[in-house]
Order: sequence, then structure tokens, then C-alpha cells
Amino acid sequence: MRIIEDDRDYREFIKIIRDRSEDFGIDVLEDSKIIIEHVKKSGDFAVELYTNRYDRFQNNTFKVSQETIEEYAGKTERSFLDALSKSIERIRHFHEKQVERSWKFKDALGVELGQIIRPLERVGVYVPGGKAAYPSSVLMNVIPAQIAGVKEIALCVPFPDGQVNPYVMAAVKAVGVTEVYAIGGAQAIAAMAYGTQTIKKVDKIVGPGNAYVAAAKKMVFGTVDIDIIAGPSEILIAADETAEAAFIAADLLSQAEHDENASSILVTTSRELVGKVQAELTERIEKLSRKEIVQHSLENYGAIIMAADTTEMFDRVNEIAPEHLEIMTKAPERDVELVKNAGAVFLGKWSAEPLGDYSAGPNHVLPTNGTARFFSPLGVYDFIKRTSLINFTEAGFKDIASAVEAMAGYEGLDAHAESVAVRKRALGEI
Amino acid sequence: MRIIEDDRDYREFIKIIRDRSEDFGIDVLEDSKIIIEHVKKSGDFAVELYTNRYDRFQNNTFKVSQETIEEYAGKTERSFLDALSKSIERIRHFHEKQVERSWKFKDALGVELGQIIRPLERVGVYVPGGKAAYPSSVLMNVIPAQIAGVKEIALCVPFPDGQVNPYVMAAVKAVGVTEVYAIGGAQAIAAMAYGTQTIKKVDKIVGPGNAYVAAAKKMVFGTVDIDIIAGPSEILIAADETAEAAFIAADLLSQAEHDENASSILVTTSRELVGKVQAELTERIEKLSRKEIVQHSLENYGAIIMAADTTEMFDRVNEIAPEHLEIMTKAPERDVELVKNAGAVFLGKWSAEPLGDYSAGPNHVLPTNGTARFFSPLGVYDFIKRTSLINFTEAGFKDIASAVEAMAGYEGLDAHAESVAVRKRALGEI
Repeated sequence: MRIIEDDRDYREFIKIIRDRSEDFGIDVLEDSKIIIEHVKKSGDFAVELYTNRYDRFQNNTFKVSQETIEEYAGKTERSFLDALSKSIERIRHFHEKQVERSWKFKDALGVELGQIIRPLERVGVYVPGGKAAYPSSVLMNVIPAQIAGVKEIALCVPFPDGQVNPYVMAAVKAVGVTEVYAIGGAQAIAAMAYGTQTIKKVDKIVGPGNAYVAAAKKMVFGTVDIDIIAGPSEILIAADETAEAAFIAADLLSQAEHDENASSILVTTSRELVGKVQAELTERIEKLSRKEIVQHSLENYGAIIMAADTTEMFDRVNEIAPEHLEIMTKAPERDVELVKNAGAVFLGKWSAEPLGDYSAGPNHVLPTNGTARFFSPLGVYDFIKRTSLINFTEAGFKDIASAVEAMAGYEGLDAHAESVAVRKRALGEI
Repeated sequence: MRIIEDDRDYREFIKIIRDRSEDFGIDVLEDSKIIIEHVKKSGDFAVELYTNRYDRFQNNTFKVSQETIEEYAGKTERSFLDALSKSIERIRHFHEKQVERSWKFKDALGVELGQIIRPLERVGVYVPGGKAAYPSSVLMNVIPAQIAGVKEIALCVPFPDGQVNPYVMAAVKAVGVTEVYAIGGAQAIAAMAYGTQTIKKVDKIVGPGNAYVAAAKKMVFGTVDIDIIAGPSEILIAADETAEAAFIAADLLSQAEHDENASSILVTTSRELVGKVQAELTERIEKLSRKEIVQHSLENYGAIIMAADTTEMFDRVNEIAPEHLEIMTKAPERDVELVKNAGAVFLGKWSAEPLGDYSAGPNHVLPTNGTARFFSPLGVYDFIKRTSLINFTEAGFKDIASAVEAMAGYEGLDAHAESVAVRKRALGEI
């Protein structure tokens, strides 16, 4: 893990981590485009074709029966189901706080203005199969939509070689999603965006996926809404001399195990802490099952950045704008005030980042690679839409009619002005 | 204007209006891409080059001085400035209601969870020059950002042949934006997204523009955030036999004058009303300065759709999901409950759609072409970002530690589990 002591090295490192944002190649784009067009044109036929080809899976329907869901879910352990229940309960509780209500107000002339909030009607959730099949991802994508009031949730999860991860199916069962399709890749995204004979089209698609899924989501954006496209995962730990080196090392490693493009960064004012963290890392890394991934990730995208003081420390934090930020300083509740850009902040030594991945309550779908400058965690607000309400009285109309006419006139839109004038004439005002 | 009486014609019409969504050609994409890459690499030099080429405008700096802004603004009429002030006041008042506050809560174990809301730090607003230079667009894009608390707002507006619309400059002055650049097109979007020697990069770019601007915005999305890309404008008027034909005709025409791709639709249960509206249209169209545009737009994308009853009327509304929806029925305040998808609803005969374009208060940047199914009007919420707050106590940690460890274990992420285990050992729990 490199140690960065000066600004030049720091600038270079920023460039390195920013360049991780894997823009899929033109071949992925082209392949996805072909699949999308085919599904758009041929519906189920094309979906079956690609499912057969890529997942080596053929069935008389790709709708997953309730029995199949139950069967897989039944294979999971009691201890898993207990952990799942606890997580679901906490995630629901947190997301309920995000619910926004419609509002309106009336002015002295009786004019009513407002904002109507309604849930999206139908949402598609993509869940990866294979290696990256995570039950927690089902919870984090489905629960906010349910809390928002989305009535129809369709979930696509590939069954490579006809099999699916039982823990994922247990999560699907636990959150109560019943409309499940055993399909994946660009064909699943296209099926949800355009609809097929079997699958009704949705209003929004969320959930992580491989490069083909990400490319397909970008391409159907506009026909449906999509969530933010997640980049490789990151943690930044801001720590001073009071922090526990073992906790820091463990948390850096937990991020690094995600994949080789993950980035684990320590920013600290304490040279003493650096030595201790390095020793802990060396010892701990040996015990990990995903040791090779961890080593690659730390070597390529890991760093210990020295900061002169707290101000410089949080300047670095805000420039990097990390997905996950742990603050392990003397006064984390004070220092959090200095944070401008981060997906989620974890304060103090008991707020280990993995708590947020599973059970703390807030969403684990977070902006990556500096996009916390302008993006937010996935939330209930991603599953609603707003409509402006405009309800004028005669008196209210009279009050602004001339302003509207004038603006329209100066913009050269005389039919706009006439829409006001015809009403003024009806009132005998002209 | 076609009259649609059966479902087959209705389906065909839906296809016609949906196909308006002008996906710019590959040439526009390629040209924009070249410009973006050039600006990214050469900064100001490239911006000047393209400004000189496309706007035939050369200057020793493209930063617009306060004197220039004042000079242009000084050319506008008192009546315009009054209308502008009135509009600004009402737009501010409405958008202030959209402000959201950070929140947090503590549970019985002292665990604090929350959502921190902060304004974006720096936003770029694009304002078109030439024919489509609208001062109202300055208000609608700048005011929500200001209300959100965005401190730095940079505004780009092209000066074709060295000239700019004085009304636009008066609007810029009135809302108090002082950082203005006389540049446009893809070069302006690239300059804001990547920064140049003169222009500091922004976090988000909003505002309408031509095909090159729209293509460039799509391409820089991810590096910065962008607003929804607006399609051609639309109005749908849902009216029964109680509605005033003259008002309906005037409002349909006001939408049709925007451009040839605009769509004006009447959905009604009253055959008598249809005759009256047609007569009004025929008479009124003759008097309009943009008569040819209006005729094209009505012919290609206009329709009167007959509905059997109120239920069918609002089924049509919800499927079309119009940008602007006027409800002119016996009981608009009751019928608005039936609306699921619309950018803005205008109730009753005094709520003429142009009021919403300028002075009513709500934003005029609205989802078009059916995207009201999942998109919202531009608002204060588009200029903030959220950060999740996670602050665990020892007791809170103990309460969920096992659940987190279990979930991580079943997902095969043992470094995640170890981040919890190292803390449990420190507590003497293992």
C-alpha cells in the first residue's frame, strides 16, 4: 500500500483511482445494443434465445413459480433467516423516515399551488446471479420501492445452468416479491424496459449487474428511468492518533475484498498510527480467503495519505468524495461537520462499514468514484415522481395575467399571450 | 387536427407522438464527442476555437463582464422588468416549499442514524442563444439552485455574432448570477464538465439546448450530473361539456407554437365541445405570427380524442403522461385525483398553461414524452445531495454484530465478517 506524503503524489493517485471508472468497451455496447433491439422486436422469443445461449438454461417459461422460490429458500439456514429478518426490519425502519408527503398551499387570492407525490407504478429490480449474487442487494433495492408505495415489483435474476443462489431466493421470499423471472444480462434489462409477451414493461430499473447489464441500462435510459450505475467500491478512513489500528486494518481489508478495482484509503495525521496499521495489514491479509483480490486491490488502488492537520484531512476527504467514509478521530461527531461529499459516513470505532452493508438500516447502494459530489444513496425518493399542482382563481388570474402576457410577448410567443388575453376579454378586462 | 374515435387509431397516434423523441443522429454524437475531447485536452484554446467557428465571435476573454450584463439589461423595458420581478418572487416562494432538511434519530441503544442534506457546491446553467433564447428559462433553472443553497452558479450563453438577447441578460442580472461566459454548444458543456483555465468545473449541468448541447450533456453524464433532457413540448387538455371552447383552442395553440414537434391534444367526452373547439381553432390560427409552425404541429402531432366517460378520459391521460395537463371539467379538483402521470396539472378555466411557463411559481422544466411516468419537474431536490449518517454505540454494535457477521459469512465475504469479529474480540465477546 503506497504512502503519500506530498501533493504531487496525491494528485497522481487521484488520477489513478478516478480512471478506475470502467467505461465498458465498444464491443460490450454493440453486443448489448443487438440484444436489446432483438428483444424489443421479438419479445419472449429473443429472451429465451439469449437465456439459452448465455445461461445454458432452457425452460418452458422463465417465470419463476412460487414453489421454486420456496424450494430454494427452504435450503437456507435458520441463522441466515434470523439475520435477514433483523436486517429487513432495520432497513424498513430507516427508509420509512424518507417518505415525503404531497403538499399544497393557498394564497390570499385563493390560488392553490402544490406538489403531488406518487409512487412509481411498476419497478424492475435486477439481481445478479453467479459469483456476485448477494441477498443483501435484494433487500437494499426492493425495500425502498416498497416503502415508496410501488405496487408492482418485477425481479429478474439469472439461473446459470438452471441454478440460483438459495440465499438470494430466501431474500426474495422474505421481502415478499412474487413476480420473479429467471433471466439476466442485457436481455433481462430489455425485457423490463420494453415489455414482452410474458413481462409487462416497467417505469424504472434498479440493481447492479455486469458490464452488459450496465451498458443495457444506459441504453434504455429515457424509455425507463434507471438508478445510478455503480463503479468499484471504496472506503476512506479518516483517523487520528486515537484510532484503533486493528479496526482500521480490518475495515480497509473488508473493502479490498470486493474486487480488484476496489479502493481502500487511509487519511491520517498520525505517523505512529501508520506503522501500526501496516503491521496489522500484513498479519491479517494472510488469513483471508480472498487474499489475492485483496492484495491486488491494495497495491493498485490502496493508499495511506498523510495529512498535516484536520483541515487538510477533510480537504482530501471532500476531494475524493468516497462512497464509504469512516471517521475515527477524537471527536467524530464534530468532524462530520467538515464533510461535504460522501455516500455514507460511519462515526467512531463501533460503526464498522460492513454494518452499513447489511443491517444498520441505511441503503448500501451509494455513489462511487467521486460522484458523491452530486449523487445520493438509493432511497425512497428514487421510487416516487412529483407533479406540480396549479389551481388559479379568477382573482389570482387577474393578479398575474399582465406579467404573463408581458413575458410571453417579449419572448415572441404570441399564442401564449393570447391564451391569457382570451380570458381577460371574457372578464371584460380588455 | 385528427379526431380519434376508436382504440386502433388511438394506439397509432400514441406511436406517432412517442416517436417524436428525437434521438440525435450519429453525426451529432460524433461531432460533439470530438469537441468534448478537444476541450478536455486543450481547455480555453479549444473553447475559443469552436466559439470562433460556430458563433463567429472572437474576444480576448469569454468571461462576460458585469458592465456587459448591465449594458444589455439596460436595453429592456420597464414593463418587462416588472413582469420579471413578479415572476421571480412567485417562483422563489414556491420553490422555498421544496427545501428539505437533514434529519437523524436515536434508538434505545443510543445508535444514531440519519440523512444529511447538503447543496451541490457548484452548478453550471446552460442558456441557449439565438431563436430559443428565453429569459424565463434563466429563472426556472437558476432559482431552484439558489434556493437549495448552491453557492457557485456559472452560466453559459452563446453570443452568436457577438450579440446576446437583452431580456436574457436582464434575467441574469435580476437573479443575481455574476459568473457568465459567452460560449455555447458542446464546447460550453465540456468546459463546465471538465474545467478549463478560465472555467472551474461544476458538479451538475442544467438547462435546455440544441441537439449538440443535448448530446454533449449525455456524454458528460457521470463526470457531472445533468438534468432530464427535454423533448418537444406537449399539452393535454381533459375537458367535458362545461369547458369553454375558446380557452381550450387558445391553450392548444399556445403549445403548438413552440415548435413543429410540439403536441397539442384534447381528450373529451363531449362531441358538442369538439365542434366548437374546431371552429375556434380555425378562426384563431389565422392571427398567429407563428401560424406555419402551429399548423405543422397540429397536423402532425395534434389530436382530439373522444372518450366514452371520465374513466376512459383519465386512462388516456395516464397513458400519455403529458408534460402539461389542463383539467377543464365540472369538478377539476375531484378529477385530479384520477391523475397518475403528468408533469404539471392546471385546474379549471383560470389556470391557463402559460401561467405555469412564466409566473405561477412552479417550475416550467417538466418531463416530456411520457417520462412523467418516472421523472419530476426540476426542483430544489435536483440541487442537493444526501449522505447517510451511521453512528453506532457499543451497545448498538453488540445488538447487530451477529446478524452482520452471519450475512457477510453467507455471502462469502470473510473480511467483512472479520471487521465485526475484531471488534467483538476487543469487547471480550469471542
